[in-house]
Amino acid sequence: MPGIGPRSAQRIAFSLLDRDREGALRLSKALEKAAYRINYCSECRSYCEGDLCEICKSETRQNTKVLCVVESPSDVLAIEKTAEFSGTYFVLHGHLNPLEGIGPRELHLDILEGLIDKYRYKEIILATNPTVEGDATAHFIGHIAAKYQIPVSQIARGIPMGGELDAIDGSTLMRSLAGRRPL
Amino acid sequence: MPGIGPRSAQRIAFSLLDRDREGALRLSKALEKAAYRINYCSECRSYCEGDLCEICKSETRQNTKVLCVVESPSDVLAIEKTAEFSGTYFVLHGHLNPLEGIGPRELHLDILEGLIDKYRYKEIILATNPTVEGDATAHFIGHIAAKYQIPVSQIARGIPMGGELDAIDGSTLMRSLAGRRPL
Repeated sequence: MPGIGPRSAQRIAFSLLDRDREGALRLSKALEKAAYRINYCSECRSYCEGDLCEICKSETRQNTKVLCVVESPSDVLAIEKTAEFSGTYFVLHGHLNPLEGIGPRELHLDILEGLIDKYRYKEIILATNPTVEGDATAHFIGHIAAKYQIPVSQIARGIPMGGELDAIDGSTLMRSLAGRRPL
Repeated sequence: MPGIGPRSAQRIAFSLLDRDREGALRLSKALEKAAYRINYCSECRSYCEGDLCEICKSETRQNTKVLCVVESPSDVLAIEKTAEFSGTYFVLHGHLNPLEGIGPRELHLDILEGLIDKYRYKEIILATNPTVEGDATAHFIGHIAAKYQIPVSQIARGIPMGGELDAIDGSTLMRSLAGRRPL
């Protein structure tokens, strides 16, 4: 498990056995429930308990006709926390990576294309990670959207808020200069 | 001195005295020369040895008629390293900070206004730091430029390259969504 090495694992296990057997049982039940009940939303492919997640179920959100494509369910949470986005999501669960055998099918881009065809979005916002693989994935999805004449945008890359210009890497600074906007 | 505490200072001093008195003298001379000779470029206010720095002297760069306003000489170096900018600079040596008595006069905005009046730039790029003070300073300069009808832009804020969406702070993610651009 990420962030938990053998020593931490042993410490946690012994602490549960020594001091909190009830907690261990609660954890066991929660894990069992999660493993059985949580599956993927049939539209956005994020985690959910039923067939559709709360966001996809919401008519107000569907009515915006704006779709945001992200790499992982944790990106959905991060964007939801900003309270700046009122549309729906599509979760890729990764990015294109031919060397590891992750192609369009593994990212369920067929489902995404189905949604595009069904909802004919006003805009698709690509919010994949600002990496080579994320960009390649964004461009691939851009081509799909172009077939349906849907406007596609990409979230801004640049200097993170609160940062310092001379502490930022060159490629971000380049993007930030190239992507300057009227004040 | 930044990054050098009393212990490091003592270690450096003793090492120079013990092992490299010649180096100490070279350092002493270099410091003396720097202290006497390096002053501010009369146009961009960056450091230089003569009256005008190499960038301000360059006709090719002046001819672009694009000015980039930054907070510090190290920002000039950072932008020069990207090799993406071919105009000239103006160095504020700080940002507006009324509480510490740093106003337009301390940032030499009168000199900046003189340059704007003299060169009638095609564009002024504001590259102050993405902080509250940096933004306030940018807007103040925006007002000066507006008097001369000079287009003003600001470098992009957003997700830094190579980063991960769910690891970024909320305000940067908000800016990144708001500042999205067509793919």
